[in-house]
Amino acid sequence: MSLKCEVLSTGDEVLTGQIVDSNAAWLADRLGSLGLEVVRHLTVGDDRADLEGAFREIGERADVCVCTGGLGPTVDDLTTEIAARVAGCGLKLDQPALDRMQILWQARGRPMPENNRKQAMIPDASEVLPNPVGTAPGFTMKLGRAHFFFMPGVPSEMKKMFTEQVVPRLDKLRPEPSVFEVKVLRTHGLPESKVDEILDGLENQFPGVKLGFRAHFPEIQVKLTVKGADIASAKQVLKAASKEVFRRLGAYIFSEGQSIEEVAAELLTMEKAKISLAESCTGGLIGEMLTSVPGSSAYFDRSFVTYTNTAKHEVLGVSEAILNEHGAVSEACAKAMAEGARKISGSRFALSATGIAGPTGGSAQKPVGTVFIGLATPSATFVRKIFFPGSRTQVRQITAIAVLDMLRRHLLGLPVEASRFEALPLEETKG
Amino acid sequence: MSLKCEVLSTGDEVLTGQIVDSNAAWLADRLGSLGLEVVRHLTVGDDRADLEGAFREIGERADVCVCTGGLGPTVDDLTTEIAARVAGCGLKLDQPALDRMQILWQARGRPMPENNRKQAMIPDASEVLPNPVGTAPGFTMKLGRAHFFFMPGVPSEMKKMFTEQVVPRLDKLRPEPSVFEVKVLRTHGLPESKVDEILDGLENQFPGVKLGFRAHFPEIQVKLTVKGADIASAKQVLKAASKEVFRRLGAYIFSEGQSIEEVAAELLTMEKAKISLAESCTGGLIGEMLTSVPGSSAYFDRSFVTYTNTAKHEVLGVSEAILNEHGAVSEACAKAMAEGARKISGSRFALSATGIAGPTGGSAQKPVGTVFIGLATPSATFVRKIFFPGSRTQVRQITAIAVLDMLRRHLLGLPVEASRFEALPLEETKG
Repeated sequence: MSLKCEVLSTGDEVLTGQIVDSNAAWLADRLGSLGLEVVRHLTVGDDRADLEGAFREIGERADVCVCTGGLGPTVDDLTTEIAARVAGCGLKLDQPALDRMQILWQARGRPMPENNRKQAMIPDASEVLPNPVGTAPGFTMKLGRAHFFFMPGVPSEMKKMFTEQVVPRLDKLRPEPSVFEVKVLRTHGLPESKVDEILDGLENQFPGVKLGFRAHFPEIQVKLTVKGADIASAKQVLKAASKEVFRRLGAYIFSEGQSIEEVAAELLTMEKAKISLAESCTGGLIGEMLTSVPGSSAYFDRSFVTYTNTAKHEVLGVSEAILNEHGAVSEACAKAMAEGARKISGSRFALSATGIAGPTGGSAQKPVGTVFIGLATPSATFVRKIFFPGSRTQVRQITAIAVLDMLRRHLLGLPVEASRFEALPLEETKG
Repeated sequence: MSLKCEVLSTGDEVLTGQIVDSNAAWLADRLGSLGLEVVRHLTVGDDRADLEGAFREIGERADVCVCTGGLGPTVDDLTTEIAARVAGCGLKLDQPALDRMQILWQARGRPMPENNRKQAMIPDASEVLPNPVGTAPGFTMKLGRAHFFFMPGVPSEMKKMFTEQVVPRLDKLRPEPSVFEVKVLRTHGLPESKVDEILDGLENQFPGVKLGFRAHFPEIQVKLTVKGADIASAKQVLKAASKEVFRRLGAYIFSEGQSIEEVAAELLTMEKAKISLAESCTGGLIGEMLTSVPGSSAYFDRSFVTYTNTAKHEVLGVSEAILNEHGAVSEACAKAMAEGARKISGSRFALSATGIAGPTGGSAQKPVGTVFIGLATPSATFVRKIFFPGSRTQVRQITAIAVLDMLRRHLLGLPVEASRFEALPLEETKG
């Protein structure tokens, strides 16, 4: 049995939506990695009755609760007072915490405001959790059957206190040495339902493995979790299961963690190759992605965002014949754009994208979501048509990942146009 | 008495911290603006017992529950099944939802996978909430004493469904005719503490007005909320208060709702002017933003993303003298880039950005975060230096908003370089 754990966030700012609660996700991820079973996140505001209710109910049903917020110096900060009330105890001064706070204020060259003294008071029944970063200490105590860990809401202080003070105490509480191993495989090119279908039966094939899917448009992520008695056996099971996932999904997996632009960046850097771009419907998105990776000057040369036909002709040398006969959204234009960008820049590779992102501009022959993407290489130019009838943002995002994935496949020697799943062209990809 | 409302997020991805729950904050903010009292957020995983427990307890204590997630096609998606179990009813097929899904799949050129049919089934006792964006409809029903609104977890689908389907139903549930009027003013160029200082005393000057600040990097939003007995009087107070905010913040307010790129797009369209770009450190971000607005072909001509010095020289005609004597990150280079882009494209305006986004590449003279931005117009070229020592992403984001804001100021006849707050150059902007 693993310990049942709840994550409790307190504070009006989180409750009213003024800030997004990233602490809860961070804590849940860490707790899961430690082998605790996170069963709930709860958020309540700076309200005496709501805090008391939350402490009492969690004390009845959980083994562990990590709680953030409400340890500050203002009248809104009620966590300590309410924890003491629920425990039926008073407050005590933690002298080392007070000393530390006074030193910090002296360093700022000002006397400590009197209301800050409140932050050094903790419940009688609790043990202090020193704060290595900020002023307010945390504390830990039992409320009901649950071990509560109270920490500040400021993410930098909370993370350090959790890592240094809470983790060692959780290790002692854990009843058995079960471990969790996790792997996330990122795929592009198949809809979630198809990925699900292809991986059918995997959990039965590898007992102890839990399979999960996450649709992060425009990609589908496959998550494998293994729970085992020791790290070595868990790792072994995970290795075997991921090998089977790779066997089944093949080239649709583009990474075990990196984004598609990081994968492309790494492959280009390894090849010592430069790339240039000819973008139309993506408006700069592909360049933005490729240059978001630190060190991108090693492989990124330039991008021509040619939005108008005139710009495609003047800048990239797309012929008027192509633009008049085939139009800007055509296989011929995508080919000419990629080849033009490659020739002008002198870079080894060039990518292109031209299409109709919508919401207007579509026609019966070329509806919104029709895009042609190109890859020019020293030996050949590849062009693919993709079709995804989604929003303007979605069409642009799927175009960018598709063209970067085409580059990845080429750099890895995988087929760019064909694939293991001929029946599933890219048009069916969805988040 | 306002309605007590809870926000329920479901799904293992949120529970285990794989994704940060931004839905809860968005919903809490909207519900608060509608005058509902949000008392809790709760998150549970894809687990039958936990979902049932959450539905039952919320049904006992809340008037309204907005619930996201668990409406997808896979075996993990349990929301509909458990809602029906708690209500003690069966499931019914919503034929219009099924028709819509089949049409969407037909548009993709292949039959709908059988497991997707599940998404058109809703509890007998519920009313459908049509999904205008994706495939899965939502539904609403009473569980216990609470009105539940079940929506997909995908933010774009959830937001549209909430706005179009849930808000009108909540309006009918609200027991008293108190109204909330809200206005959000978006600013750029001042740090939050300075905005706070400038607006000091506003709440006292306009009783009934609540003032809030939200740091949405790279901008600061000022939110005014007025609660009143009738719409007319609330609107009147809000109008007077926002007039005062405009008087105090002046040109730092760039919109009452639109993004900076939407403002720029509207002004360019009104002027019937085309724009071109010369980007370096932003890598395509400015073009991506300007073309994210539907109809951007009316004003967007082209962008040259010239990442290397060679590209700046070859493509934009930046002289070797400038690159050798001043370097690519200089006032002279930003000026030459903007003027080069304007000349080559023939567009009325051109913007440029060249800087050091980091994390490497900085020096003592030009530390990471140093950026020069330019605006070339028919009459003159303006260049500003900005300095923001943040992350690579932050430097790029603040560069993009700063250069678009420079364009906005110019198109509105406002000073581009000087401002009402001479003591606060852009370098002090922070999120």
